[in-house]
Amino acid sequence: MSKPLSIAVAGLGTVGTGVLKLLATNADLVAARAGRRIIVGAVSARSRNRDRGVPLDAVRWYDDPVALAQDPGTDVVVELIGGSEGPARALVEAALAAGKPVVTANKALLAIHGAAIAELAEARGIPLAFEAAVAGGIPAIKGLREGLAANRIQRVAGILNGTCNYILTVMREQGREFAEVLAEAQALGYAEADPSFDIDGVDAAHKLAILAALAFGRPVDFAAVHVEGIRAVTALDIALAGELGYRIKLLGIASSTEAGISARVHPCMVPVAAPIARVDGVFNAVVAEGDFVGRVVLEGRGAGAGPTASAVVADLIDLARGRHTPVWGAASGALDSAPAVPMDRHRGAYYLRLMVLDRPGVIADVTGILRDESISLEAMLQRGRAPGEAVPVVLTTHDCEEAAMRNALSRIGALDSVLEKPALIRIEPI
Amino acid sequence: MSKPLSIAVAGLGTVGTGVLKLLATNADLVAARAGRRIIVGAVSARSRNRDRGVPLDAVRWYDDPVALAQDPGTDVVVELIGGSEGPARALVEAALAAGKPVVTANKALLAIHGAAIAELAEARGIPLAFEAAVAGGIPAIKGLREGLAANRIQRVAGILNGTCNYILTVMREQGREFAEVLAEAQALGYAEADPSFDIDGVDAAHKLAILAALAFGRPVDFAAVHVEGIRAVTALDIALAGELGYRIKLLGIASSTEAGISARVHPCMVPVAAPIARVDGVFNAVVAEGDFVGRVVLEGRGAGAGPTASAVVADLIDLARGRHTPVWGAASGALDSAPAVPMDRHRGAYYLRLMVLDRPGVIADVTGILRDESISLEAMLQRGRAPGEAVPVVLTTHDCEEAAMRNALSRIGALDSVLEKPALIRIEPI
Repeated sequence: MSKPLSIAVAGLGTVGTGVLKLLATNADLVAARAGRRIIVGAVSARSRNRDRGVPLDAVRWYDDPVALAQDPGTDVVVELIGGSEGPARALVEAALAAGKPVVTANKALLAIHGAAIAELAEARGIPLAFEAAVAGGIPAIKGLREGLAANRIQRVAGILNGTCNYILTVMREQGREFAEVLAEAQALGYAEADPSFDIDGVDAAHKLAILAALAFGRPVDFAAVHVEGIRAVTALDIALAGELGYRIKLLGIASSTEAGISARVHPCMVPVAAPIARVDGVFNAVVAEGDFVGRVVLEGRGAGAGPTASAVVADLIDLARGRHTPVWGAASGALDSAPAVPMDRHRGAYYLRLMVLDRPGVIADVTGILRDESISLEAMLQRGRAPGEAVPVVLTTHDCEEAAMRNALSRIGALDSVLEKPALIRIEPI
Repeated sequence: MSKPLSIAVAGLGTVGTGVLKLLATNADLVAARAGRRIIVGAVSARSRNRDRGVPLDAVRWYDDPVALAQDPGTDVVVELIGGSEGPARALVEAALAAGKPVVTANKALLAIHGAAIAELAEARGIPLAFEAAVAGGIPAIKGLREGLAANRIQRVAGILNGTCNYILTVMREQGREFAEVLAEAQALGYAEADPSFDIDGVDAAHKLAILAALAFGRPVDFAAVHVEGIRAVTALDIALAGELGYRIKLLGIASSTEAGISARVHPCMVPVAAPIARVDGVFNAVVAEGDFVGRVVLEGRGAGAGPTASAVVADLIDLARGRHTPVWGAASGALDSAPAVPMDRHRGAYYLRLMVLDRPGVIADVTGILRDESISLEAMLQRGRAPGEAVPVVLTTHDCEEAAMRNALSRIGALDSVLEKPALIRIEPI
């Protein structure tokens, strides 16, 4: 067996500790599959004293991650600090500059600075691996970039944030409102104290930007991703979705159209029969559609120490075996340059839910506005009757353009018989 | 870009033609992802004249596949003839002997002669790739052997035969009997004229034997797989399964237990809530459980020209990029040698359906026999009452040993109040 692969791990939080535990627990099995032992030679973390349940006395400690990147005995640098700036970014850049392969779980860093970092890695011919950055333990990056490499990918979509999926699942199962379920999720540790990164869709958008780059063979472009979170989803809309045969999921969807590449993260109504509609709780799923393979669905745990460590060590085994793939699946000269399609140009079907004053003429006003914007109705239902009082009215449309729907929505919202900000959820025939 | 990868394709049936079409349709995309062009330099097929919709005038034709394997201009040999013996086997052995990497979709060959072929490939240090041999377009082999490589796999299971899954799905949806649905499937081309290979579970067992070898890092061992097909599944049992909250699927299941490795293919009752219960029609699914990653589910099209070609070309792209993996995931010296566990030693829960004469004492006789074999009942239900006539009686058990259940079954079948061969289906808490 060849000489051991000596790694340096920066960041010993949940994930970093999980990686050390996995390498200790499955040392022989990992060695057999990697063709050599993988040993932790150096680490960098805030506290040296915290007990992490794994022996660290033999390893070289660094307070400065950048110094860790230059550790002469290190073959591969593993970045598990997190965050798009600061020490994580400095460490990755320093490691590549020092000619050391990098394994990272950092989706924020890759989404925002991935294009430049990939150029640096390619220019120096150094592997950069990041299976753990998307969908945790699901081999989504390997599956898409290698497993489906023979296909022209038309679309990649997924449930990419376990916190949002957990909240939406509990809201549906228990008929409860967002704020209440979020507070409970925070108490249970399923949501951060500051949850905005998850519930506003930013984390899912980071992952989608990476998936889109791999699916379509282009540098990552986070700025082009349209992002909406789940704060505005109500128990009423989840219940109405059920009546209409849909489930509400926060999806990231990237598709290749004649006009270019569209990438968006927002709540969607998906048919209850779609495989992705059944992916509940903290589970993630990635759906890819290729011209020869058809639709492939990958499902599993999207977060947590174990699944993330599984992905990080899978990357290390690839490196130990000398299995390399260009960051975006192809050399920079062969990357795709299709333009990004703005959200205004998106075409799709919509669910619109209004709270209106139950009096004659309201529906005529609303449907008149939709007609003016050449939006054709698929269905309309008013829940209950309460003359002079507020009642919910649901409208679903055939495919129309987002810009037209936005115009209609602002005019409808301005009607004095419309009592609340209208709820809009896009319908995805996924 | 490096020099093209010149491949020789043996077998130009549905799959072979699909591979040529994919390489022609996605030539530029494949070249970008492979880092070089992949060109078809030589072919071998029965008829030279058949129009396959792809130009073949420029390629070198061979009538003898073994001669094709020695074609001096060939970098990689692609075996798409099929069958565990004859020309397919001779071609693969000749190619490896000639030092040429092999890509094959041949599950029968790998299941039956894979151990010896893998040794030959390893001894000569030549890559042998076979993503297309299991679950068609689903990147199951790459996902398991590379994507989950950091995990100790406890279990791998799957819906591995689209024909059986299609037949069982139609039987359930339309409440029809096996023979009738099979005949229809044959008319539609979903089942072969001689369907035994599929419906008797042999094809699924070939694929399971390969998955088990990859999951547990051991040479493939088809002889150790217990195989039952779906001929005995009735519309009545499918309906009763539904009442009990189950669906009947033909599953291949390989698990690692204290006693060793158990591998079996047979109809199973799976909880309707399990992801795999919703995989219907010709779709396949593979479920893997790892100690760190937890459960991962991969779903997609398990057969057909497009999905199979997608998998074959993914292997070619790996080879073009120089990405290699030992056949069973580890070098022969590091392979696992746990014993195979015979089916008699299997422990699980059972569904038993009898047609009995509706008269006093019958249930007492049956339950007495189960007690004698120390099998404890979970539930018992008799459908309807018809004194003196035949009525179905369903019993479900707690976990017990297969051998005990077999003894009980033969004694129960011998009771004169039991009018038909009892139906037995294993319950899997997958």
